[in-house]
Amino acid sequence: MNIDRNAPVGVFDSGVGGLTVAREIMRNLPSEKIVYFGDTARVPYGSKSKETVIRYSRQIIRFLQEQKVKAIVIACNTASAFALDEVQHDLDIPVLGVIESGAKVAAAETRNNRIGVIGTIGTVGSGIHASYLKKLNPEITVIGKACPLFVPLVEEGWLHDPVTVEVARRYLHELQEENIDTLILGCTHYPLLRSTIQKVMGEDVRLVNPAYETALELGRLLAEKELQSTGTGQEEFPYRFYVSDLADEFKSFANSILPYDVEMTQKIDIEKY
Amino acid sequence: MNIDRNAPVGVFDSGVGGLTVAREIMRNLPSEKIVYFGDTARVPYGSKSKETVIRYSRQIIRFLQEQKVKAIVIACNTASAFALDEVQHDLDIPVLGVIESGAKVAAAETRNNRIGVIGTIGTVGSGIHASYLKKLNPEITVIGKACPLFVPLVEEGWLHDPVTVEVARRYLHELQEENIDTLILGCTHYPLLRSTIQKVMGEDVRLVNPAYETALELGRLLAEKELQSTGTGQEEFPYRFYVSDLADEFKSFANSILPYDVEMTQKIDIEKY
Repeated sequence: MNIDRNAPVGVFDSGVGGLTVAREIMRNLPSEKIVYFGDTARVPYGSKSKETVIRYSRQIIRFLQEQKVKAIVIACNTASAFALDEVQHDLDIPVLGVIESGAKVAAAETRNNRIGVIGTIGTVGSGIHASYLKKLNPEITVIGKACPLFVPLVEEGWLHDPVTVEVARRYLHELQEENIDTLILGCTHYPLLRSTIQKVMGEDVRLVNPAYETALELGRLLAEKELQSTGTGQEEFPYRFYVSDLADEFKSFANSILPYDVEMTQKIDIEKY
Repeated sequence: MNIDRNAPVGVFDSGVGGLTVAREIMRNLPSEKIVYFGDTARVPYGSKSKETVIRYSRQIIRFLQEQKVKAIVIACNTASAFALDEVQHDLDIPVLGVIESGAKVAAAETRNNRIGVIGTIGTVGSGIHASYLKKLNPEITVIGKACPLFVPLVEEGWLHDPVTVEVARRYLHELQEENIDTLILGCTHYPLLRSTIQKVMGEDVRLVNPAYETALELGRLLAEKELQSTGTGQEEFPYRFYVSDLADEFKSFANSILPYDVEMTQKIDIEKY
């Protein structure tokens, strides 16, 4: 296995949400280059079947391999749930997903072994967090709750709005009654609602942000395999962004959450891969 | 042109929303058979480019032609906006869209020539209602407002919920200030929010439901071309439903808005068309 340690890391998501993961990689591993792919033509994955999500993930991975990435981060909960195990067999570069990284930290942090998971209908319905968590510690009880309005509320920009607080109260009420002490933000948009969710849940509940934990896990994995970049992070265009549709909408969301201008967004025909 | 008048009508949408149009056809043209296609694998269309939506619409129309439909209803605002003109040239059977039908009635009903249009970001941004309305009457002023939270609120089932009323107040406030007397429900999910929208807008504003108007327009068009069914409407399986992904979720939504059980939902591979 001969991998170029100065190659970029590939990060993909069904759309814009995975940018919260890319952002954590930029913050925590500043010398790493990133190729991001957002499958904006086929978003959302949450309502699609396992078979379809695996097919889409394989297409995107073929595209990222063409970009000669040294590792792949599946920054999408649905794709992590459905495709991670499948694609790990196909590849000789490291692949990691947001679900594993979040689950590990939650299992280590809980004191009463009662962990909540919020996400899309697809992610929560898949029970994937529960199956990882129970492998780590069979004593853990997992309480899942789908919060389908959170993504459109984030995309509307109503991050601290009273409507969002009220919706969060409705969704999170049953998790409070279940006396959880740890809550996994199981959807890539949710870190943007972190402060609203913390306010509703109270300060005693530990929120786990898998975007952040995945960036740290990537750092450990690259170190272990001696694949950390030796670059300065000051190269021209360290971050490249690709989408399958409508680059303009992507750019405006990206510019609202990333600390600099996303200039180089390119549309590619993912169906060809 | 040799069209079988007892053939079914083809109805398609990006997902489940177009079932509100199918429902109005069932209610108002009870002897017509329907083949419905919901593109649940590729929903939503609202965030996709014109080029992509035309390509998807052509694939679906090829599938519906294989089902030997006698007419096609584009029960999706985005597809009507982007694809109706394009596909009308390709076909020798009648094709109609929800946007034209709604616009005609709104133009006829307004007294102060101030018409509001609500819909997804894609539909409202396209300005397509305004361009139809201005062709019908250049004196008309159109005020558009995107309401991206309405679809997930409907899908959550919060049709008369205080949260939905508050979201509607926010969205509709500027339409009230603009003194419109007619409001087009420019998204197929919105008829399910009719009573909430009417409550917020007040009884003096006329709501136009394009699902209903399209069913009436279809009836007129079939009569004009002598294509009305001579059947009784009592045939076995007068309504057939096809989707591109996850037939189960589709069925549960369909069963919640249609007056009978949707048993015969079949998944097909639309990419092949």
